[in-house]
Amino acid sequence: MTINLPKTDQKRIVIVGAGFGGLNLAYKLAKSNYQIVLIDKNNFHQFQPLFYQVAMAGLEPSSIAFPLRKLFHHKKNVFIRITKVEKVDTKAQVLYTPLGDVEYDHLVIAFGVDTNFFGNKNLEEKTIPMKSVAEALYLRNVILTDYEKAVTTTDYSERQGLIDIVVVGGGPTGVEVAGALAEMKKYILPKDYQELDCDEIDIYLIQSGDQLLKGMSKESAEGAKHFLEGLGVKVILNKRVEDFDGSHVMINDGTKIQANKVIWAAGIRGNSILGLPEDTITYGNRIKVNRFNEVEGVDNVYAIGDIAYMEEEAFPEGHPQVAQVAIQQSKTLANNFKAAIKGKEKKKFFYKDKGSMATIGRNRAVVDLPNYKFKGFFAWVVWLIVHLFSLIGVKNKLFVFINWVWNYFTYDQSLRLIIRTNSSKTEPEQEEIT
Amino acid sequence: MTINLPKTDQKRIVIVGAGFGGLNLAYKLAKSNYQIVLIDKNNFHQFQPLFYQVAMAGLEPSSIAFPLRKLFHHKKNVFIRITKVEKVDTKAQVLYTPLGDVEYDHLVIAFGVDTNFFGNKNLEEKTIPMKSVAEALYLRNVILTDYEKAVTTTDYSERQGLIDIVVVGGGPTGVEVAGALAEMKKYILPKDYQELDCDEIDIYLIQSGDQLLKGMSKESAEGAKHFLEGLGVKVILNKRVEDFDGSHVMINDGTKIQANKVIWAAGIRGNSILGLPEDTITYGNRIKVNRFNEVEGVDNVYAIGDIAYMEEEAFPEGHPQVAQVAIQQSKTLANNFKAAIKGKEKKKFFYKDKGSMATIGRNRAVVDLPNYKFKGFFAWVVWLIVHLFSLIGVKNKLFVFINWVWNYFTYDQSLRLIIRTNSSKTEPEQEEIT
Repeated sequence: MTINLPKTDQKRIVIVGAGFGGLNLAYKLAKSNYQIVLIDKNNFHQFQPLFYQVAMAGLEPSSIAFPLRKLFHHKKNVFIRITKVEKVDTKAQVLYTPLGDVEYDHLVIAFGVDTNFFGNKNLEEKTIPMKSVAEALYLRNVILTDYEKAVTTTDYSERQGLIDIVVVGGGPTGVEVAGALAEMKKYILPKDYQELDCDEIDIYLIQSGDQLLKGMSKESAEGAKHFLEGLGVKVILNKRVEDFDGSHVMINDGTKIQANKVIWAAGIRGNSILGLPEDTITYGNRIKVNRFNEVEGVDNVYAIGDIAYMEEEAFPEGHPQVAQVAIQQSKTLANNFKAAIKGKEKKKFFYKDKGSMATIGRNRAVVDLPNYKFKGFFAWVVWLIVHLFSLIGVKNKLFVFINWVWNYFTYDQSLRLIIRTNSSKTEPEQEEIT
Repeated sequence: MTINLPKTDQKRIVIVGAGFGGLNLAYKLAKSNYQIVLIDKNNFHQFQPLFYQVAMAGLEPSSIAFPLRKLFHHKKNVFIRITKVEKVDTKAQVLYTPLGDVEYDHLVIAFGVDTNFFGNKNLEEKTIPMKSVAEALYLRNVILTDYEKAVTTTDYSERQGLIDIVVVGGGPTGVEVAGALAEMKKYILPKDYQELDCDEIDIYLIQSGDQLLKGMSKESAEGAKHFLEGLGVKVILNKRVEDFDGSHVMINDGTKIQANKVIWAAGIRGNSILGLPEDTITYGNRIKVNRFNEVEGVDNVYAIGDIAYMEEEAFPEGHPQVAQVAIQQSKTLANNFKAAIKGKEKKKFFYKDKGSMATIGRNRAVVDLPNYKFKGFFAWVVWLIVHLFSLIGVKNKLFVFINWVWNYFTYDQSLRLIIRTNSSKTEPEQEEIT
């Protein structure tokens, strides 16, 4: 069965994944002389840097997600298909999906990464990842449900398990979640749960390396640790979480921490597709590409963003897996596609590092610019502005802004709803990440 | 096991259900000399009149739901427990819940009604009800998923099944959903789905009686029908839906309508609790009460709101099952509880009908005031204002207002996200409506 798509004399570029890379590429090629087919398992683009605020009930999913179809109104050469991808035949140039086969002239793989549990089934089944809006909402529901249970529990040990939270992984997600949890403990939970002694809540952040925010400067890493500890987070460095049985976390030094909830932000791993030659897959399940984002050894297949592994002079071990790389690669690749039509030469990709940042609760953030580092209140304001303006859509910007201002002044987040969409009905089957 | 609640010398009033009746009652008794235990299966109050806008992707659940705990900050005599109720022992004065037993001095049943499928298993399993935020979100997901499927289908008949929608029930919910669907067809779907011929979408509204909005005036019913037909809705009166097999709706005149989606708003039925004497249950599974909202034949048990059936001189067949009755009964009952402490006499309930209204798309509504009826643009403005001010919380009012203004001027609703919270994880088990 072939997927229902109009046949035109335009060459067809199939883009898999509507994250920062895929979405920007499709957007830049809209109205070009290609037929663009954008495939994603969700009907929306999600803004990952703010997942943790959805999990902490500070923002609604709709504020950080944007319907794909709305973005491509009046873009007649762009076709959106909501499905997963299963396999590619690089000889026949056909992509296989549950919706049907798609022939392509060019295939761009931009389906990013998912959580890496390093092969541990317990961790995969029992910890909570944060790589999608749905997972963030799930985390929100679990936290709120557990606090409701804690209120009605008379058993001390059972209650501790319900209220304590362990965050694993000291990257931006782990740091930001831990900071947000600490603020929730300080400002919100004591008002919501007068019956609980909120001082008893322990929040742990466990990082296997010897600094938080690996990849950022030592100063910023120290600053983040200092801010977190100031908020009461127990930061544990140089320890690795080896297992979790649903009630206790096993650390590699033999100690155990009691907690029912473990947030797993300790690693990522490239998503997979069948049909690519084995030697194109490298560290972290990434796809090896040349400086034109071309997958070597196969024709007309490209990879961009987190899933792509490219060695550049300044980045001999590949680029960091961040939004900026994906956005910049989509720009170069879009230009190369356009150049091809005009018979012009394609250009190599060069990454321009614009810096990185992380926030730790209200009024505090750390920012590394290429030539300048700073932290504290001003860094936090910069963090807010950069993230606000990176959101797609005027209305999203407006709603996030109002939510932030509201939460800032009221010390309160009003979205603490445990809502499950499945209701009494069977939900249309959940699709896996491609 | 007894539920974990402090013992005080205050009499304990247990309120089951945090809808308009139960929530208002708890709110009015906060800071009184009673211990109040408010039980609901959700941790939020939901504003039912706007469910249909959640289903139509015009509003977020959080805008029309309000976390219970937030409402009772600093109300030290109010205890919230999120659970269902199973059984009551009216002799021992104990309520049984999965969380444990609760002894009561007074028990107020305010758990309202749920959808009535009139015993038809097919209808119960295959149609989509609209009696909770979760069901509204489910409907939203199903509609969007089906339109995604329709885009990729080449089979004409299959596509018609995916895009046509049948609404059953001509009450306010049915009328408002049908109107909103018709607007979606007109303004939004043609932009989102350029590949579909949106003129082919049929929206049916089927009502068993000979007028829409039973209980409102003939003028308003006619007005609503006129407005709906103007928007292209096929209004069918005096026909009853007898069955639905998932792809065809069977009408009692022997005809069939092809559609995969049937929205069931054709009837309601009181929720149940075990342990009440049989003769206290009457029409529509409602609980019979006297003019003091006392369930007769048992001591210290009360019922208010949709679940209560009270005969008043002006309402010999019971009150309409609307928010105003619940709110007014909660006020009278709260005063009677307070009067009891002071040894004062309790007062009979009298319902003051403030009128009723329904909206049909943008710029159109019908309003019946006790002495005055009107319709059209002004009625619509009145509808907006009344509903906006009935919402709990300044922030909810603000967000709904911005959403409405935004949608009004852009002719677009930007919340068309198919989000499932279950993710790859098992969701904490969904609790049934008590």
